[in-house]
Amino acid sequence: MRGLGRETGYAHGVEPGLLLMGACRSFGIPEISVYGFTKDNTKRPAVQKQAFSAACIAFAEAALHQGAALLVIGDTASAQFPQELRPYCTRQGNGLKVNLLVNYGWEWDIEGLRLSGRLRSQEVPRLDLVMRWGGGRRLSGFLPIQSVYADFFVVEDYWPDFRLDHFHQAMRWYQRQDRTLGG
Amino acid sequence: MRGLGRETGYAHGVEPGLLLMGACRSFGIPEISVYGFTKDNTKRPAVQKQAFSAACIAFAEAALHQGAALLVIGDTASAQFPQELRPYCTRQGNGLKVNLLVNYGWEWDIEGLRLSGRLRSQEVPRLDLVMRWGGGRRLSGFLPIQSVYADFFVVEDYWPDFRLDHFHQAMRWYQRQDRTLGG
Repeated sequence: MRGLGRETGYAHGVEPGLLLMGACRSFGIPEISVYGFTKDNTKRPAVQKQAFSAACIAFAEAALHQGAALLVIGDTASAQFPQELRPYCTRQGNGLKVNLLVNYGWEWDIEGLRLSGRLRSQEVPRLDLVMRWGGGRRLSGFLPIQSVYADFFVVEDYWPDFRLDHFHQAMRWYQRQDRTLGG
Repeated sequence: MRGLGRETGYAHGVEPGLLLMGACRSFGIPEISVYGFTKDNTKRPAVQKQAFSAACIAFAEAALHQGAALLVIGDTASAQFPQELRPYCTRQGNGLKVNLLVNYGWEWDIEGLRLSGRLRSQEVPRLDLVMRWGGGRRLSGFLPIQSVYADFFVVEDYWPDFRLDHFHQAMRWYQRQDRTLGG
């Protein structure tokens, strides 16, 4: 992250998200899901927590401004959920569907199966591709049920160092994968 | 797979499993989970189905012979479940824990949450590492809940071409990963 502290880094994460949205639109991708922050992340120091909350709010507002059909998904019952994002917990608009996970947790998500027979993230369909920046080769709790058949593409660069070429590499790679969906 | 038909290939998959078990023992790994076949796989031609069922039975018997504490996990209520493996649906023995998924399905697994509040694979704990052979960069429905924090290591060679060096590469790689478990 170019030697920046984590709390400074988050603000640099908004612009890449908007660039990625534009690239998805130009490829005809109808829906993306973005990992904002998790319930586990909120155990970090307050200065970081404020920074990633603020970055999620800034991204949400800019995405709406660009015509995205935004849906925020996460545990709104907790004090860690930013009140500014409450209005977006119902999908609005007809543009690119952007699902933003905010104060999300995989345990919280699948607990819905026990309580109501449905995932709490039930509005998110099966994912084709999971892209991860920063070299980590794991899901880290990201939408485990929707990801069961997803192909994983890992970018070594960190997210604030996003380049459109990362996305283009992923698209080229994805087109070479066979999709069997478990068959 | 060296130009072999799929139905011939499965029989060549047993020996690699036994080699891998031995390597895990020598590294002090207490438990592994092996993807035998899935409920989706049983939609394949009968000749393949018989071949991968037979390979699972052969692996189970050889694993027991080597002192593994075997547990077979899968949908025993379906006709696709090999009756020979019924006795191993309760763990026996004190050696390396080997969980063999047979006629397994992720939907069948998480349906347990709805029906009883527990995964049907509840005896399998969180996974640290997922190794996949054959170049595919996806879980393909493998234990989605236990895999939420797992690191993925992909081997380009096919499983019947297993070499102990694949495992050693994965161990070296895994030791360089930081494990945050979502924090």
